[in-house]
Amino acid sequence: MKKMMMLAFTLVLGINAMAQEVKLPAPDKKVSTTLFEALQNRKSVRDFTAKELTEAQLSNLLWATIGVNREDGRMVAPTAMNRQEVSVYVATKDGTCLYNPKSHSLTVVSKEDIRPALTGQQKSVANAPIFLVIVSDASKFGNGNGYAELDAGYVSQNICLAAAAMGLGTVPRAMMDREAVKKALNLGERQLVVLNHPVGYPNE
Amino acid sequence: MKKMMMLAFTLVLGINAMAQEVKLPAPDKKVSTTLFEALQNRKSVRDFTAKELTEAQLSNLLWATIGVNREDGRMVAPTAMNRQEVSVYVATKDGTCLYNPKSHSLTVVSKEDIRPALTGQQKSVANAPIFLVIVSDASKFGNGNGYAELDAGYVSQNICLAAAAMGLGTVPRAMMDREAVKKALNLGERQLVVLNHPVGYPNE
Repeated sequence: MKKMMMLAFTLVLGINAMAQEVKLPAPDKKVSTTLFEALQNRKSVRDFTAKELTEAQLSNLLWATIGVNREDGRMVAPTAMNRQEVSVYVATKDGTCLYNPKSHSLTVVSKEDIRPALTGQQKSVANAPIFLVIVSDASKFGNGNGYAELDAGYVSQNICLAAAAMGLGTVPRAMMDREAVKKALNLGERQLVVLNHPVGYPNE
Repeated sequence: MKKMMMLAFTLVLGINAMAQEVKLPAPDKKVSTTLFEALQNRKSVRDFTAKELTEAQLSNLLWATIGVNREDGRMVAPTAMNRQEVSVYVATKDGTCLYNPKSHSLTVVSKEDIRPALTGQQKSVANAPIFLVIVSDASKFGNGNGYAELDAGYVSQNICLAAAAMGLGTVPRAMMDREAVKKALNLGERQLVVLNHPVGYPNE
């Protein structure tokens, strides 16, 4: 993780090319936890150590969110009318990246540490080395149907289960300084910051 | 499945006691598919054979939706502010049951075959032996926050993954005759019929 992020931030921020993609290692998907074990172990964890994730863990975790699982580009999470309107960001102390499912890569979108805005008042989660942020573009749908939020739920459960399968903890959180997050990520009016997920080792 | 449903309908409908609970066998959870294999195999299936599910498959499938995974009654799917507002119904040709996660049992709520109302115009899914229906009680929240829909997404992804893990097919569907379904299930004004999931063997 450290090496990968260093690489990302050296390569991308170092040359001020904010749009450059940094490839992630291919997800190994060899985690032996069964689906039913992951369901059994699924719970909300709200207190974390600062221990970093490995590059392999981050790669698996991101693939599990909205990764491509078929040659036609379709993903592990369905979306209403296949609009694929959900985006996932990774926030660390060094900045925030957008996950690109088709290339399984990261693009740095902000040099800010937005974790305080994501943490809000719930200080117990502040230690988590990364936060995943689920953004859903409601402009892909009409108003008031809840599809943008619904589709975020699939991705959030994937994060819950992948964390449980890899011995990590997480919790889906809706409370945050949403305006600060939207500004830092340069989101449009109808790009909803639905949830964030601190992910790390449980502080038990 | 056939035996269990026969039992349910003999016991429950036969004596006109609509509120009686019929216990499901305990979920065995021994399905060996890993979480990452289930994610890899997750896809939408829209064409089914009429082959019935076994009692064990139905038990696992229902536990995977909103089953209890801890002694304090908490569930495999999180809900916003732990409101536990999501309900799951099973619709078959013989009628419709409510799943009771705390007792892992079914309660018959309608003797109607509501599958035509769930199928709507998409006739290819009509063959599926069962439909799961995800209902979310928006009265547990304020207006316009999308929490009721969001929470349905977790449950829907659990169904997608559990089906994939057990060699079954499913697809989350929002198009249906919602008013007919609400009426048959005797739902309140703010109990949203968010999605239905035909589940069965893919017709390949």
